[in-house]
Amino acid sequence: MSSHLRMGMIGGGNGAFIGAVHRMAAALDGQIDLVCGAFSRDHDNCLATGQQLGIAPERCYRDIAALLAGESKRDDRGSDTGSGAQLVSIVTPNHSHVDIAAQAARAGVHVMCDKPAGISLAEVEGLARTLEQTGTHYGLTHTYLGYPMVWQARHIAGSKPFGAIRKVHVQYVQGWLANAAEKDGNKQAAWRTDPALAGPAGALGDIGSHAHSLAEFICNSRMHTLRAHLRRHINSRTLDDDGEILFDLENGATGSLISSQICAGEENGLTIRIYGENAGLEWKQMEPNSLIERRASGEVIVHRAGTDKPLCDAALARCRLPSGHPEGFIEAFANLYRDHARAIQAGTAPARSGVPGIAEALRGMAFLEAAIASSAQGGAPTAIKPPACGPDLKGLLS
Amino acid sequence: MSSHLRMGMIGGGNGAFIGAVHRMAAALDGQIDLVCGAFSRDHDNCLATGQQLGIAPERCYRDIAALLAGESKRDDRGSDTGSGAQLVSIVTPNHSHVDIAAQAARAGVHVMCDKPAGISLAEVEGLARTLEQTGTHYGLTHTYLGYPMVWQARHIAGSKPFGAIRKVHVQYVQGWLANAAEKDGNKQAAWRTDPALAGPAGALGDIGSHAHSLAEFICNSRMHTLRAHLRRHINSRTLDDDGEILFDLENGATGSLISSQICAGEENGLTIRIYGENAGLEWKQMEPNSLIERRASGEVIVHRAGTDKPLCDAALARCRLPSGHPEGFIEAFANLYRDHARAIQAGTAPARSGVPGIAEALRGMAFLEAAIASSAQGGAPTAIKPPACGPDLKGLLS
Amino acid sequence: MSSHLRMGMIGGGNGAFIGAVHRMAAALDGQIDLVCGAFSRDHDNCLATGQQLGIAPERCYRDIAALLAGESKRDDRGSDTGSGAQLVSIVTPNHSHVDIAAQAARAGVHVMCDKPAGISLAEVEGLARTLEQTGTHYGLTHTYLGYPMVWQARHIAGSKPFGAIRKVHVQYVQGWLANAAEKDGNKQAAWRTDPALAGPAGALGDIGSHAHSLAEFICNSRMHTLRAHLRRHINSRTLDDDGEILFDLENGATGSLISSQICAGEENGLTIRIYGENAGLEWKQMEPNSLIERRASGEVIVHRAGTDKPLCDAALARCRLPSGHPEGFIEAFANLYRDHARAIQAGTAPARSGVPGIAEALRGMAFLEAAIASSAQGGAPTAIKPPACGPDLKGLLS
Amino acid sequence: MSSHLRMGMIGGGNGAFIGAVHRMAAALDGQIDLVCGAFSRDHDNCLATGQQLGIAPERCYRDIAALLAGESKRDDRGSDTGSGAQLVSIVTPNHSHVDIAAQAARAGVHVMCDKPAGISLAEVEGLARTLEQTGTHYGLTHTYLGYPMVWQARHIAGSKPFGAIRKVHVQYVQGWLANAAEKDGNKQAAWRTDPALAGPAGALGDIGSHAHSLAEFICNSRMHTLRAHLRRHINSRTLDDDGEILFDLENGATGSLISSQICAGEENGLTIRIYGENAGLEWKQMEPNSLIERRASGEVIVHRAGTDKPLCDAALARCRLPSGHPEGFIEAFANLYRDHARAIQAGTAPARSGVPGIAEALRGMAFLEAAIASSAQGGAPTAIKPPACGPDLKGLLS
Repeated sequence: MSSHLRMGMIGGGNGAFIGAVHRMAAALDGQIDLVCGAFSRDHDNCLATGQQLGIAPERCYRDIAALLAGESKRDDRGSDTGSGAQLVSIVTPNHSHVDIAAQAARAGVHVMCDKPAGISLAEVEGLARTLEQTGTHYGLTHTYLGYPMVWQARHIAGSKPFGAIRKVHVQYVQGWLANAAEKDGNKQAAWRTDPALAGPAGALGDIGSHAHSLAEFICNSRMHTLRAHLRRHINSRTLDDDGEILFDLENGATGSLISSQICAGEENGLTIRIYGENAGLEWKQMEPNSLIERRASGEVIVHRAGTDKPLCDAALARCRLPSGHPEGFIEAFANLYRDHARAIQAGTAPARSGVPGIAEALRGMAFLEAAIASSAQGGAPTAIKPPACGPDLKGLLS
Repeated sequence: MSSHLRMGMIGGGNGAFIGAVHRMAAALDGQIDLVCGAFSRDHDNCLATGQQLGIAPERCYRDIAALLAGESKRDDRGSDTGSGAQLVSIVTPNHSHVDIAAQAARAGVHVMCDKPAGISLAEVEGLARTLEQTGTHYGLTHTYLGYPMVWQARHIAGSKPFGAIRKVHVQYVQGWLANAAEKDGNKQAAWRTDPALAGPAGALGDIGSHAHSLAEFICNSRMHTLRAHLRRHINSRTLDDDGEILFDLENGATGSLISSQICAGEENGLTIRIYGENAGLEWKQMEPNSLIERRASGEVIVHRAGTDKPLCDAALARCRLPSGHPEGFIEAFANLYRDHARAIQAGTAPARSGVPGIAEALRGMAFLEAAIASSAQGGAPTAIKPPACGPDLKGLLS
Repeated sequence: MSSHLRMGMIGGGNGAFIGAVHRMAAALDGQIDLVCGAFSRDHDNCLATGQQLGIAPERCYRDIAALLAGESKRDDRGSDTGSGAQLVSIVTPNHSHVDIAAQAARAGVHVMCDKPAGISLAEVEGLARTLEQTGTHYGLTHTYLGYPMVWQARHIAGSKPFGAIRKVHVQYVQGWLANAAEKDGNKQAAWRTDPALAGPAGALGDIGSHAHSLAEFICNSRMHTLRAHLRRHINSRTLDDDGEILFDLENGATGSLISSQICAGEENGLTIRIYGENAGLEWKQMEPNSLIERRASGEVIVHRAGTDKPLCDAALARCRLPSGHPEGFIEAFANLYRDHARAIQAGTAPARSGVPGIAEALRGMAFLEAAIASSAQGGAPTAIKPPACGPDLKGLLS
Repeated sequence: MSSHLRMGMIGGGNGAFIGAVHRMAAALDGQIDLVCGAFSRDHDNCLATGQQLGIAPERCYRDIAALLAGESKRDDRGSDTGSGAQLVSIVTPNHSHVDIAAQAARAGVHVMCDKPAGISLAEVEGLARTLEQTGTHYGLTHTYLGYPMVWQARHIAGSKPFGAIRKVHVQYVQGWLANAAEKDGNKQAAWRTDPALAGPAGALGDIGSHAHSLAEFICNSRMHTLRAHLRRHINSRTLDDDGEILFDLENGATGSLISSQICAGEENGLTIRIYGENAGLEWKQMEPNSLIERRASGEVIVHRAGTDKPLCDAALARCRLPSGHPEGFIEAFANLYRDHARAIQAGTAPARSGVPGIAEALRGMAFLEAAIASSAQGGAPTAIKPPACGPDLKGLLS
């Protein structure tokens, strides 16, 4: 019998947001079972959450250590026929990501972690060394890399007719922090604007990190230098809530990145445009099933998602439905979980799983640190430290 | 512990389409477990499908009768702590829907059935009588009634400022039967164009039935008379693949319904526009998170889906994510499963569950039969037989 | 010296709407000079209008007869070097169109007439006979046939890869008559709802006539039979303000036409979709520079207007600007004036001018009369009388 | 009799592009007559152009000096009843703009000039001093300030509910210089990439100048500091064809400006987004009749152009047609000509005409020079020199 992968969750108790998204994403394809969790530091909340989710109280743990210990006692945890958790999903605030991930890895448990990977490049470098040793899988939920049309964009941008990539403009704008929501009982806003929990990057860490990974992924090239201008629009804040970055990619392209959570009225406005010598591409996350290609010859093509459409294999593999049946954010997220589970079960090297991993985590943290440093120096050109990790972990860029 | 609802599936073996959609929809919210199935009349296919889904071979049954028998032997099937299936999902071709549903109901097992409900009004009337007796739940997956903005449209259309509804124009156009796909090994096309399996309505049964339910639902009024013109564009077909219907609603509104699967190039083009005395609404399934309201005063408002948006309660209850994180077809479908499961577990009367049920099934079949009769008489005005079912089953229209 | 064509205008005094549009359209390309007019039956209004337009008082006439008489006295009216009006633009209410046009034609003056051509097929047939004799040009401002992407649509729909045309769905919906605007001092509403001035067709005459001509033009085929259901939503009205028509074209295609002015909130919603065996086309007047082609093969192409785009010659000839510089309603209207003026100056046969003429006028009137007759008989199938006019006047359909 | 304004044109001979646009814009409203021109330095071309336009050969002049001399001899040139040109339209390459404008002004002839105003701030400062003395009108065709929804955007952005403006992001991307079109006989490309004719700014002068004026206008605030990164993607070029600018406005807002003509496939992609404390606005030139407002409260409103819409007075004054009848680039351009003509005829102070003038010209040139200086220094923060001109000329910003 094809077995399901057994998953525990760290964080995601009642009142949290992203935990529920991870659970839906993991559940969608019916291949991952949520079997345990340490859903909250408030154990009553943990138990209540577990009850709602149908998790037995004895598998509602106080923390990651207890979870790893408890699950390790179950027979054959590592095997398909065992019952202990094989994977943990980390959906806590950023400051605890690395520690939890490292504990899991050392216990031989695979990890799926919400982004950003941590709060400093140094700690993520430590995690990378741990993963080199444990050989366990580590996935980072850069959700937007789960969308089929993002893979199609990468396919077209890398094709010969597109020509060399010259420009990439990416923006990620939201409006939910236009006012001081953190003072009005919004828990999301509270921890995301608190450097102790969120780390040194505010909007940039929360959403700019997605824009960075998306640009690198579609262009299949690393960002090496940037000039950043970060800002706070609410006086009481200490972290950026808005900013612009100009950057250079290794392939010679240049571009801009806008990251803001004070763009009043904006929902989840992630948009990217990439220009080659002969054509341009435009993708908007809020209309994710269309990818517009405009050719210098004057033709405009709308590439559409769907199992019945003429798309590249990687894009098709990320569609579940025929065209016209819209798939969205949860499906993109579920693609990451599905591919992560498949790679774990098949023993595929993480770098070949199609899921962002520790290499992307390192690049993301290096990007954040370079941006903060540049901004502190008035937008001075600043190099982004290249990630160092072995071939098995080297990530999605070729 | 809050328990999951245990579900079996009839149909949906390898090679089928809609079964996988039902499984994803049922799985999404983590409240329904697929525990058994009779996935195919080919038992090898059934077993292979079960294996892929992680279903034990002893719970892969040969047919509905075997499934009901086998599951009934499990302790406390009807209780939360038992292990037998409490619900069956029916995803077979139309001709077997009623028989399977009736068997399940008589065995005290709840039903979620793909639409249309059957192949004749008479057989669905029989099923309605059965359900009156068994008191079990019956849901019909008119997917589009799971979209939050459809509920928002109904809310606005029923509000005083909108004024009396005058017009409704709905169209559902697809292109996948523009050519004789049924002769090229397309299994979906094969059974849907075969009256023995699909019943007497072709495109009208497959998608026109959705358009009908959507129009009635948003307008909160029953269609009572129609004039239909159905057509076949591929000579070898015996069922309609295209047609137009003009109709009257009980609230005095008139409108048009286009149902076609030969509109080459169209994906899943379900669009509806409703006009009141003072405003109009437009909703397109392919961009489901927006509902456009145009007021006679000149204002144009885009109502957007999202848990953070100013929407009616019923719409909000069908959003999982903040605005800008697109939800689509699977989420709409999952809303039906979630609400069906909730009503079953809470013992809510079916007519209050928010899920289309036997009343909608009856109206849908009466609509199809009236349309076929009208078309046979050159578009003669034809009354639609009103459904007869008790108050507990009377459906979503007030 | 290349001379300008000299034009007079009948109607279009202060307070009118469409007259100003005709003047802008005629002026845009700098080839037509407005030199005189009978702008209003109220001669003070006529003089005031003339003054605003810079027309000398002696060329502000009381009516068409006076204008023709006055202008005929100017030297060499018919020649490029003369000074009398060579063309009259008729922008009065419908009931006077034919008489004015016939007077002009008999005086050797060319005509551009607002649609519909008149208030009965019989009177337009009389005009057709007059034009056969006079050999003067007659243009009918079916504005939408001036849009480049409408010509591109016709080009694609007529091409081999598109396959035989099977379906055409056209709708023209407005909301400005959703309330009884004619009782609130709206002059446009007043005459358009008055059968003495507008003729026997209300919304159908005003905008349904455009939908009819657009469908025939793009499909390059005549509508021969229809079933019409016309309606009045404001009790005090005697003319239709809403309706649906099902129709057959000579090429075997079938379709639907919606014509309504009570669709509250709608602006000027003319949309057409055409389906062939292998592809579909969609054009929306409110976004006129895009034409969407969806192919059965799964490709979606957006054909865009612009002098730099890969379009057919006829479409390119109707673009003034490179792509991305939006052209709209006035430019489409101006294309009709420009082509009419060119044909007049070059002596091109009217049927080759690219401008709708008396053949379209006859078909339009026959369509209106058939629709009214059909509706009066509960939607009975009704043949549309084919136009009878000689080869020089036979119109745009091949 | 209300008289037409008489206009001459400098440049715009056969083979040119923008001259024809100016002529259509001037002609549209029937208030300006083109009576003479110096259409080309090639006098044969000048004569041929004149003939096509219906201009008598004796009013086809060799240059501006000859035109001014020739027209001055006509009786009562300055009066409504005279016949000499009262206004010249300058559509030559940039390097000659200032000299021609100054000659005209000194001759008492008003000017409408294509942008940018010249090739250096110094020469435009000289022109400003001339205009202070002559008191003649000077208009600069920043076309996009003629769109009604741009005025509506300014109205909303300046309203109290919008809150203080925090951000503005504007981009103007085209693709027509993605390849070395200047080497393939494209005259437009040839002069625009030649610093002797275009001045020191390439794409930035051609289109970045529009983006700058649009941002300042909608925000009603001056840009005071910028950081620019300009680039050339074709080796043989000496002028920028691509670049990004980060900037500060006097009102405290910050933003970004993208200006590129190498974005392959882009048509005329001018887009602006402005964010206040409580709402955001988005306007796209390619869909100019819609202005999207997204409020922090969650509401999304589409403000639509049209004489029947609830818009501010300034926006309504720039609409000619009811909503749904698309107006575009030529109509926006014509609004500038119409308002310029009205101001000239009414003796309105230029700064109150609603038409960009010498103040905008000075700011535009100061912007270009600051950007070039900043880019030469690696993006160093650079102040933009404030314009100095008297109150009558001080421009559109309050």
